[in-house]
Amino acid sequence: MGKCVLVTGGAGYIGSHTVIELISAGYDVVIVDNLVNSCKEAVDRVSELVGKPITFYEVDLMDKVALEDVFKKHEFWGVIHFAGLKAVGESTKIPLKYYHNNITGTLILLEVMQAHGVKNLVFSSSATVYGDPQRLPIDEEHPVGGCTNPYGKTKYFIEEICRDFALANADWNIVLLRYFNPIGAHKSGRIGEDPQGIPNNLLPYIAQVAVGRREQVNVFGNDYNTPDGTGVRDYIHVVDLALGHVASLKRLDQGCGCAVYNLGTGKPASVLEMIAAFSKASGKEIKYEIGPRRPGDIASCYADPSKAERELGWKATRTVEEGCEDSWRWQSANPYGFKAAEQ
Amino acid sequence: MGKCVLVTGGAGYIGSHTVIELISAGYDVVIVDNLVNSCKEAVDRVSELVGKPITFYEVDLMDKVALEDVFKKHEFWGVIHFAGLKAVGESTKIPLKYYHNNITGTLILLEVMQAHGVKNLVFSSSATVYGDPQRLPIDEEHPVGGCTNPYGKTKYFIEEICRDFALANADWNIVLLRYFNPIGAHKSGRIGEDPQGIPNNLLPYIAQVAVGRREQVNVFGNDYNTPDGTGVRDYIHVVDLALGHVASLKRLDQGCGCAVYNLGTGKPASVLEMIAAFSKASGKEIKYEIGPRRPGDIASCYADPSKAERELGWKATRTVEEGCEDSWRWQSANPYGFKAAEQ
Repeated sequence: MGKCVLVTGGAGYIGSHTVIELISAGYDVVIVDNLVNSCKEAVDRVSELVGKPITFYEVDLMDKVALEDVFKKHEFWGVIHFAGLKAVGESTKIPLKYYHNNITGTLILLEVMQAHGVKNLVFSSSATVYGDPQRLPIDEEHPVGGCTNPYGKTKYFIEEICRDFALANADWNIVLLRYFNPIGAHKSGRIGEDPQGIPNNLLPYIAQVAVGRREQVNVFGNDYNTPDGTGVRDYIHVVDLALGHVASLKRLDQGCGCAVYNLGTGKPASVLEMIAAFSKASGKEIKYEIGPRRPGDIASCYADPSKAERELGWKATRTVEEGCEDSWRWQSANPYGFKAAEQ
Repeated sequence: MGKCVLVTGGAGYIGSHTVIELISAGYDVVIVDNLVNSCKEAVDRVSELVGKPITFYEVDLMDKVALEDVFKKHEFWGVIHFAGLKAVGESTKIPLKYYHNNITGTLILLEVMQAHGVKNLVFSSSATVYGDPQRLPIDEEHPVGGCTNPYGKTKYFIEEICRDFALANADWNIVLLRYFNPIGAHKSGRIGEDPQGIPNNLLPYIAQVAVGRREQVNVFGNDYNTPDGTGVRDYIHVVDLALGHVASLKRLDQGCGCAVYNLGTGKPASVLEMIAAFSKASGKEIKYEIGPRRPGDIASCYADPSKAERELGWKATRTVEEGCEDSWRWQSANPYGFKAAEQ
């Protein structure tokens, strides 16, 4: 039997892809997820893909008693903590919910881990903690804390909490992973990104236009100081991202204390380049319209991923083209996501 | 009947003094306090001083159900939120407890206030949010977030949470008060600062030396870039501080959105000056020993209090000498604090 890893938010986009790679790497996995932004169907499909049942609990991290029950039933070696609300725009409208859910949820998780002697943690942070980049590419020494929306602040605050906690508890190991922009899907096309409502991220938006659910992509500004004037980001294939988590578990095992890594490709791509790549991958014309800049958006953001390569032995190898192809396979086979399958 | 104000942490040092001034100003007051760092005796004495009973609930803010019961029993106009753990050193050793208690406690309070339509809040922040000062005196525009200990970070994070919450809820009013260093006690000598264990703050430490509980004051460094080489702070009389809260309630009533004010005197005083002032006030020799600097301590920190004067119509009027006299009156009459009286 392999080491058993608890995956919070394991029914979500990055979580579900990570579960597959964990199981492939020989880990046992238990998922907890409150299914607020995800579907049980995703877990069933992961189960199908890996060819064995996966232990799943519909548990909210805010419910300490329920979480403790899960820890009593299993002997976890470590936890990968994905669970959290993640819509930037919504976070400015209902900040209390974001702070409470994300921060208190994490504090309860840490408490329960501590009570059960589980001392290995990987936390889903985000490049958003860097705020408006002062230099590019962004390495892990770049100043943090400049983000202006509550979603981003929850990531930053939780990083600080984890750091202080690891400082006070020398026998703990915590890896903070700062994700850039995940795209793509599992090769099977059975799981993928399935946003509820209007997608907040570019790729699922483009994919929904390609599949006919939306009319056109709105491009927010083409007068940025970038090669084609549209915003530039670091789009990383979700399977590469998932593999970064497997590599992080090995790093925990080396006794890393609190360590932080960018998970990105280091290769910038613009909005127009992504539209073109998706159009090519899908064979569909993608209508788009240039509109004004969106407040809070930054021109460019991409990673220096060299620390992760050096210390985790991990590197993103999948291209944006492959990400678009995989995303299209998922989207075209599941135009309305998991919910349609569940009904 | 006056407006009813809920005071969380109302049995504590600043809380109890504020309750007196609130009642003098015509407010009705209800106190909740978990008595973790305070004594019921303080509430009884405040009651005695104001000449009427005060409604008190032994409630922990983490206990949402109990807090909601309090909100069901009273119709609050607003809340002054003092409750929180406050020992800097301890916060580095048990950060999880500090984050959970202070942040989650505040989030629960905000939730319960929102559920009951209570939209006026004064929050106890601290000058510690400024970190190592980049300029002196410190005005409210000075950058924040540079503090390195979990206690200070809880104050900073809660400020950000309040700010985002007020942005999202235009009908709320929140005043964030950044305290400098409170000293002194009520003129009666019946209530005052009563730290558990070894005092973290200079004045109660000096007072305990003066009263014979401790042998000498340890002065951490006399090679700072200050007039006499010892650290310089802004010591504000706790009654002035209390009056700042009364003034803040009036500001809430004007519809201030989220506003932030320094509560300080603007007058720097060194460690050696404070020892001399206390010696004079108490008529006791205060032994002290110069030792090495303490990690994390800063040379100087004092307020520009002009914004509070301008917008709150409030100004500290009590001197350091008066603070020492009042502190001595309390300490000499209650050498072992409230606990001795309770036993």
